[in-house]
Amino acid sequence: MQEEKQSGRMEGFSDGVFGIAMTLLVLELRVPTDSARLAHDLAVLAPKYFAFALSFATILIMWVNHHGIFLYVRRFDAHILFSNGLLLLFVTFMPFPTALLGDYLLTSQGRVAAAVYALSFVAINLSWILMWHSIRHRRKVVAPRITDHDVRALDRSLAIGLGAYVVAAALALVSAVASAALVLLIAVFWTVQAFRRHEVTLA
Amino acid sequence: MQEEKQSGRMEGFSDGVFGIAMTLLVLELRVPTDSARLAHDLAVLAPKYFAFALSFATILIMWVNHHGIFLYVRRFDAHILFSNGLLLLFVTFMPFPTALLGDYLLTSQGRVAAAVYALSFVAINLSWILMWHSIRHRRKVVAPRITDHDVRALDRSLAIGLGAYVVAAALALVSAVASAALVLLIAVFWTVQAFRRHEVTLA
Amino acid sequence: MQEEKQSGRMEGFSDGVFGIAMTLLVLELRVPTDSARLAHDLAVLAPKYFAFALSFATILIMWVNHHGIFLYVRRFDAHILFSNGLLLLFVTFMPFPTALLGDYLLTSQGRVAAAVYALSFVAINLSWILMWHSIRHRRKVVAPRITDHDVRALDRSLAIGLGAYVVAAALALVSAVASAALVLLIAVFWTVQAFRRHEVTLA
Amino acid sequence: MQEEKQSGRMEGFSDGVFGIAMTLLVLELRVPTDSARLAHDLAVLAPKYFAFALSFATILIMWVNHHGIFLYVRRFDAHILFSNGLLLLFVTFMPFPTALLGDYLLTSQGRVAAAVYALSFVAINLSWILMWHSIRHRRKVVAPRITDHDVRALDRSLAIGLGAYVVAAALALVSAVASAALVLLIAVFWTVQAFRRHEVTLA
Repeated sequence: MQEEKQSGRMEGFSDGVFGIAMTLLVLELRVPTDSARLAHDLAVLAPKYFAFALSFATILIMWVNHHGIFLYVRRFDAHILFSNGLLLLFVTFMPFPTALLGDYLLTSQGRVAAAVYALSFVAINLSWILMWHSIRHRRKVVAPRITDHDVRALDRSLAIGLGAYVVAAALALVSAVASAALVLLIAVFWTVQAFRRHEVTLA
Repeated sequence: MQEEKQSGRMEGFSDGVFGIAMTLLVLELRVPTDSARLAHDLAVLAPKYFAFALSFATILIMWVNHHGIFLYVRRFDAHILFSNGLLLLFVTFMPFPTALLGDYLLTSQGRVAAAVYALSFVAINLSWILMWHSIRHRRKVVAPRITDHDVRALDRSLAIGLGAYVVAAALALVSAVASAALVLLIAVFWTVQAFRRHEVTLA
Repeated sequence: MQEEKQSGRMEGFSDGVFGIAMTLLVLELRVPTDSARLAHDLAVLAPKYFAFALSFATILIMWVNHHGIFLYVRRFDAHILFSNGLLLLFVTFMPFPTALLGDYLLTSQGRVAAAVYALSFVAINLSWILMWHSIRHRRKVVAPRITDHDVRALDRSLAIGLGAYVVAAALALVSAVASAALVLLIAVFWTVQAFRRHEVTLA
Repeated sequence: MQEEKQSGRMEGFSDGVFGIAMTLLVLELRVPTDSARLAHDLAVLAPKYFAFALSFATILIMWVNHHGIFLYVRRFDAHILFSNGLLLLFVTFMPFPTALLGDYLLTSQGRVAAAVYALSFVAINLSWILMWHSIRHRRKVVAPRITDHDVRALDRSLAIGLGAYVVAAALALVSAVASAALVLLIAVFWTVQAFRRHEVTLA
């Protein structure tokens, strides 16, 4: 009971930070000032809409998976608290690389922007792995309901995610659009995965 | 019990995103800088106050209806999760078209702004219909308390909303003010409907 | 049980909007750019710190009283929902008049800014009275625990608040500083009241 | 039961304000406009990333400790409510000194910025002490589970924190970087402390 309540607080706080970070993304969309050709000037913002939707969708999927991991946690200690804090730090940071990608994707500086964007997800993924390791290796904090199959599935899923984002970051050195397309593909892949499982772990 | 908790989390997260999106609308109201005729310069902002209040009211009503729909959901799966995510994406987007309408309503570019504003609500309405269809057509997720009457009422309500917003978007090609007035009328209509039912489904 | 849950949702949503509105106030504090005399330029922002703290404190007290009123509500209907929505609309609006007061308090346009600021609280107070009347006059929604004494105390408290803010708005025509000082005095008065009661209704 | 609910509401509201304040920090990170050397211009923002991460981490730790203190509270009265409100006021204020530090740390005005930054934490610490004294000195509000050892440990911890931040503020007069480094050291110290206790009080 006590532990359940603690879990609720930690998740409630994390939920709040995820939700606010997702909603703040819109503030990077600035209305063109004194435009005489508004339809044209709005169309030019296309990369910004794309970056907004891509970050929103990716953070949404991460939010779902965040709950999936926390279902395995029986007790919260400093390791989980601070690795979760690191994860939230990088999630909170996302409006910045998102605005960067939206502003520069189709410019001569697009590769720098796409690299920073993909690297932000690498950072998120690494803090996720850190958090997961702070959970899975210590018996005291893991819920009994977790199976070896669950552990391996999550290990693999996080490794694939990390690898894909590292490739996206490397790809940015060649083509900004290809890198952003790969990040989009990762989000689509995760969404398809969720539908395959038919029922999401927590929703 | 488990399912109830899941429902609570999904609703809590959605509530948070609705609330933040509504509150962020105010950030599009910028104080005139170094004004020597402040009263006049504040009066000129009238279209921005109007757009702020209109978006706030419409999202508030949508928040109420969001709960109304979720009362019918017995179990959350990937279909509902992602269609709800799409809905939240468009709700989160609203501060942008709201600022657009406020900036351009009474200018020569007003029709473009009004069209984008009405089309944003078309997108919200479509994602709403998608979510509702992901609920109503599958027995597993629908709560037993729902009646055929409820289903038909919601079908009709969503169809009317979609039609009205499409008309508002088309009207924008003729007159920006007429289009915005129709969006206002839709909000008033929904408010009157809620009063007619005497008791709101969830509040 | 069902009703309690409804009350919780309504209050949770209102809490969120109050909290976000209070936190967004800080965004109106802009760091001086490329300042060569930073200490001086920060000191010049004094009216902005004052406006920030005054709005924060007043909304905090309103949040406390919001719960006080909702303790009397047994059941939520459309009247309460929409009058509460109107209240939240004006609370959400507060970052704008707060920025206005901070920017113009000590300038030649100070009286306009102070008048708008005080009038915003008049609007909040009026929507509060509207909400309270939608509660107190209908037996169905009022909790049995409310006494005639409670009703009269709240009637009086809201009437005093309205009167004081109207005076502050009128005073702004003469002196911006005097008007802002009165708004501050009202907040101090309410705080003292809360301490007199020893225990706040809800906290 | 009634008291537990009150406590939950107070904590929920405080959690929300902490979470929003932390997330808003990112808005002070502005994307360079029309940059032709984006990688270089992003690297130049290093002090801003540092200030963002430092404030985020410090507020996160404060959030953890906030729960630690509230575990001792049996009943909320006006003293706790308003001292907690003062604490939230200063926490909400943090995006401003954070932006200040990020903008000026490595400039000739760095010492002013670092002093304001450290003084903001002094203010937070003082309001914390005020809140703690409003709890510990009155029997009515303190939970029975609190021991003399707990009280002395918290007394000492708050005194050390205050002293360290005052030193950081004084140090700013000599060197901005040294002052910021000390604030970082305090955060590291607290994190190590949390790990020593093995299990965080609430998480």
